[in-house]
Amino acid sequence: MSDYRAPLADMTFVLNELAGLAGIAKLPGYEEATPDTVAVILEEASRFASEVLDPLNASGDREGSRLLADGTVKTPPGFRDAYLKYVENGWNGLTKPVDFGGQGLPQLVAAAVEEMWHAANMAFDLCPLLTQGAIEAIDLCGTPEQKARFLPPMVAGKWTGTMNLTEPQAGSDLAAVRTRAVPQPDGSYRLFGQKIFITFGEHDYTENIIHLVLARLPDAPEGVKGISLFIVPKVLVNADGSLGARNDVRCVSLEHKLGIHASPTAVLAYGDHGGATGYLVGEANRGLEYMFIMMNLARFSVGMEGVGLAERAYQRAVAYARDRVQGRTPAAGAATIIGHPDVRRMLMTMRASTEAMRAVGCVTAAGMDRARRSRDAGERKAAQAFVDFMIPIVKGWCTETAQEVTSLGIQVHGGMGYIEETGAAQYYRDARIITIYEGTTGIQANDLVGRKTQRDGGAEARRVAAEADNAARICAAHADPSLAAIGRNLADAVAAMREAIDWVVGEGGNEPSAAYAGAVPYLRLCGLVAGGLQMARAATIARGHLDRGEGDAAFHTSKIATARFYAEALLPHARPYLHAMTAGSAAALALAVDAF
Amino acid sequence: MSDYRAPLADMTFVLNELAGLAGIAKLPGYEEATPDTVAVILEEASRFASEVLDPLNASGDREGSRLLADGTVKTPPGFRDAYLKYVENGWNGLTKPVDFGGQGLPQLVAAAVEEMWHAANMAFDLCPLLTQGAIEAIDLCGTPEQKARFLPPMVAGKWTGTMNLTEPQAGSDLAAVRTRAVPQPDGSYRLFGQKIFITFGEHDYTENIIHLVLARLPDAPEGVKGISLFIVPKVLVNADGSLGARNDVRCVSLEHKLGIHASPTAVLAYGDHGGATGYLVGEANRGLEYMFIMMNLARFSVGMEGVGLAERAYQRAVAYARDRVQGRTPAAGAATIIGHPDVRRMLMTMRASTEAMRAVGCVTAAGMDRARRSRDAGERKAAQAFVDFMIPIVKGWCTETAQEVTSLGIQVHGGMGYIEETGAAQYYRDARIITIYEGTTGIQANDLVGRKTQRDGGAEARRVAAEADNAARICAAHADPSLAAIGRNLADAVAAMREAIDWVVGEGGNEPSAAYAGAVPYLRLCGLVAGGLQMARAATIARGHLDRGEGDAAFHTSKIATARFYAEALLPHARPYLHAMTAGSAAALALAVDAF
Repeated sequence: MSDYRAPLADMTFVLNELAGLAGIAKLPGYEEATPDTVAVILEEASRFASEVLDPLNASGDREGSRLLADGTVKTPPGFRDAYLKYVENGWNGLTKPVDFGGQGLPQLVAAAVEEMWHAANMAFDLCPLLTQGAIEAIDLCGTPEQKARFLPPMVAGKWTGTMNLTEPQAGSDLAAVRTRAVPQPDGSYRLFGQKIFITFGEHDYTENIIHLVLARLPDAPEGVKGISLFIVPKVLVNADGSLGARNDVRCVSLEHKLGIHASPTAVLAYGDHGGATGYLVGEANRGLEYMFIMMNLARFSVGMEGVGLAERAYQRAVAYARDRVQGRTPAAGAATIIGHPDVRRMLMTMRASTEAMRAVGCVTAAGMDRARRSRDAGERKAAQAFVDFMIPIVKGWCTETAQEVTSLGIQVHGGMGYIEETGAAQYYRDARIITIYEGTTGIQANDLVGRKTQRDGGAEARRVAAEADNAARICAAHADPSLAAIGRNLADAVAAMREAIDWVVGEGGNEPSAAYAGAVPYLRLCGLVAGGLQMARAATIARGHLDRGEGDAAFHTSKIATARFYAEALLPHARPYLHAMTAGSAAALALAVDAF
Repeated sequence: MSDYRAPLADMTFVLNELAGLAGIAKLPGYEEATPDTVAVILEEASRFASEVLDPLNASGDREGSRLLADGTVKTPPGFRDAYLKYVENGWNGLTKPVDFGGQGLPQLVAAAVEEMWHAANMAFDLCPLLTQGAIEAIDLCGTPEQKARFLPPMVAGKWTGTMNLTEPQAGSDLAAVRTRAVPQPDGSYRLFGQKIFITFGEHDYTENIIHLVLARLPDAPEGVKGISLFIVPKVLVNADGSLGARNDVRCVSLEHKLGIHASPTAVLAYGDHGGATGYLVGEANRGLEYMFIMMNLARFSVGMEGVGLAERAYQRAVAYARDRVQGRTPAAGAATIIGHPDVRRMLMTMRASTEAMRAVGCVTAAGMDRARRSRDAGERKAAQAFVDFMIPIVKGWCTETAQEVTSLGIQVHGGMGYIEETGAAQYYRDARIITIYEGTTGIQANDLVGRKTQRDGGAEARRVAAEADNAARICAAHADPSLAAIGRNLADAVAAMREAIDWVVGEGGNEPSAAYAGAVPYLRLCGLVAGGLQMARAATIARGHLDRGEGDAAFHTSKIATARFYAEALLPHARPYLHAMTAGSAAALALAVDAF
């Protein structure tokens, strides 16, 4: 057995030393997020994750959420209680606007806390995660009256929220949305249509669910510029905030999925009985634009799901490898399998990948905080450019890497890994959705190539590469052979990234098909380098502490060893991704469609 | 929906032009395997796979095999009938010894046929696959009386066979086997113990099951040199071949697995009621040695499972990509997703990987045939050296690559891929066992490093590298820019492989832990190069046909395009594996065990 323990030592190191928590705590509105306060929050979150969420993870997977004959959904035993405790302990309002009852803490703190929720019970956290998106939509684009009516109960967790984008014919391509919204004399709308893949679209946690729904007005233009955003409560809300009649939206089925079984994925029917009452959010026909504003945060959160699942898979694999006696090692005779070199290689791959992803995620979160709250407009703009560049990387690279890490988690267990009761397979199944929802890896990569690299001529991409190059130089100049090795390997990877950027803004700009065929390799290259940058910084900082005799020497020594493994065993794959772009993209398109 | 269609064009090309079927058909005993006869066999197998096995694959996964209260196992609806048809059509005896009723066809033919079974319904084929292992054990090591008694019904498919190796404490490490065999006055033995993970250890197909069981005699030495092999029939067999009493072996539970649900994975209890009657196979204490003789074929078959699953996942992904309308392409506006560059990249990755694996598997199978039947002893020896080197690569590389291909199969489907009813997820779940059973990838890699590379000083590894280098030169010298590109990339990968071999037999020999920590990267490097070699040969041959205006020009053009993609987008990952060995292996071992 393996119980989840939040990696507090690494989280604290990453928040304080890589992501600059002390600096974030100096920004207006974030003054309470001092390192000491944050340490207490992380301790508390860690306890909640270990004691409440982790114990429900396997049973939730086994039991799943079920649609009852009356159209209600029963979540797995214990989930509703856990949700009520979660809300009671204030976790729902962590980063939410103070004006509506939230605690307004920085995204950087939320990133670490969210990682714990995802690690302990990803299916559970999907409800708060989607609610957060709905809150953000209303907060950013709603009228004062809408905010006053909907936000306080949502921030308090009394009501939850959903995001209704997908329809059977409209997945990645939201231009194809067909749900209709018909204006009513009282200023409201009646909605008609079917939405699919709606996470926690129906459940038994709360008395109300606030659906955020993309739909078309009767006179809307075709395509993406004709989509509007609506609030559609499951139960209508009176002007005084009390609940009114049941709205015309029904859960008609739940999907049977590979993983995240505890999370009900609903098909919602709107308007089968005269129309579901909805309220326009913001201006007509700007719904997709609003969605994209929110999407950044949702995509970031999904990236952190990758980090959480990877950490959890790593912990379970380590526990098994320490315990399982099998075979003999060259050194020690009969031994636990953690002594086997190949098991060590697998565990190091899992560990190094996870630490790199955590660091990249948290540094990006700090960028989000600076983009929102820095006093200087130039700083805000620079931080936003960084965040814009990093979001598809955090989403795409962390989720793809989580596939490999959770797969290794099974492999370390050998035959036992294939048995569901062992628990390793659940992380693998749960993880398989994260490269898909909130935009597939391909969608992230196209965003990275088009909007995030070509649009500014590669400026921000080159700035990140320069930062990595600088970190590489600092390492390479070091007498410590581990740091020198890290510096060498990172410099090679940065060189590949620079060539890749040149190609994306050069030849790739002239050949859009080729650029998009090379987009995922480009994303993975950038992700590897972003991870290498943070691991190099971490190693340099750790080396400094060791040289000065400060802090936890064992932690700092391990950090350097892990960073070196990342640099020597994982980072060399950066260059092949460049080949896959520059040469492989034409080859990817060479075969005629009929020949497949 | 997607129905399985065997890739007959590619199979025919690989068998005839890469694996030299005509030459195999000239070997003694294989005279019937002429290209024409084989074409008919492949056609028939293809029909059986499409019409009988494929339609049961999803339902078998959904229903699973179930253990009933009386200790019998009910396989999913349709499976028993399909098995009886399979046997009736003679598929069970395809490669089995002619002396016992088999058809004695070459392994090369079996490789292609088996790929179809695995692709259409891998869980179904596990029963014949394990039976084949049991037949081989008895045929190689049994007494004439044992052969006469057990082989004819097993070859006919009237009885099935199992391999009982694993115990709770003895997985990869068979030295830890504890099942006891107590000699009886009549020359038989009584067995006591528990075996786990026994594929088709109990089922409702046939009246009898012949278990091949590893156990220890009372006076046996410790460790691997004290394990003997026994025949333990589920129902005792009288001297005249008729069935006698039920033996003391019982299925006590079935595992709840991530995939291959239709295949019952049994826990078998031996001797709970006085001892299970068993018969010693071969000499005492040589059981593990016998197992290793058989293991080659079993490992090869598992590698071909990887090829089959990859092909099936590819076919389903192509079918979906042709059908699903979503988004707009730079060129054509609204379009099916097969027009999207990133979808094309995914499909090409799946296709190129699958074709390379198929070619490597079939060329290895031809080696097995030559090792068995070549008239010249030197040729037999050379072929055996090649097969010995290739088996861990076929097993390890094809199964690891199948993880990536089946994962891409889900990704091409987007959100639909995560829904079980779509079918893509099943291949992904089924595939996850193949890097584990019949020896994990780590076990294969250790074998490749130790017995298959270090033991002969790297001679066979260098011979394969030289063959690849030669293929690269031939390509590189070609005027066709695709072939030139293939040659360039293959030459680079071969250079990395040669450095890797030098390291394995040099430094790696001095530092066994480091060599084993670098073993899986070495295996993956060798697999990539082996695939590159066959794809380069295929491209050269295809180019020749095109130049001479022979054959199916569309097929040959596609083959060159696919080989080029393999060379430009996949093969460049060879060199990072070298880094992961030479530098990364020390880094993999640097972290203290306590620090994980």
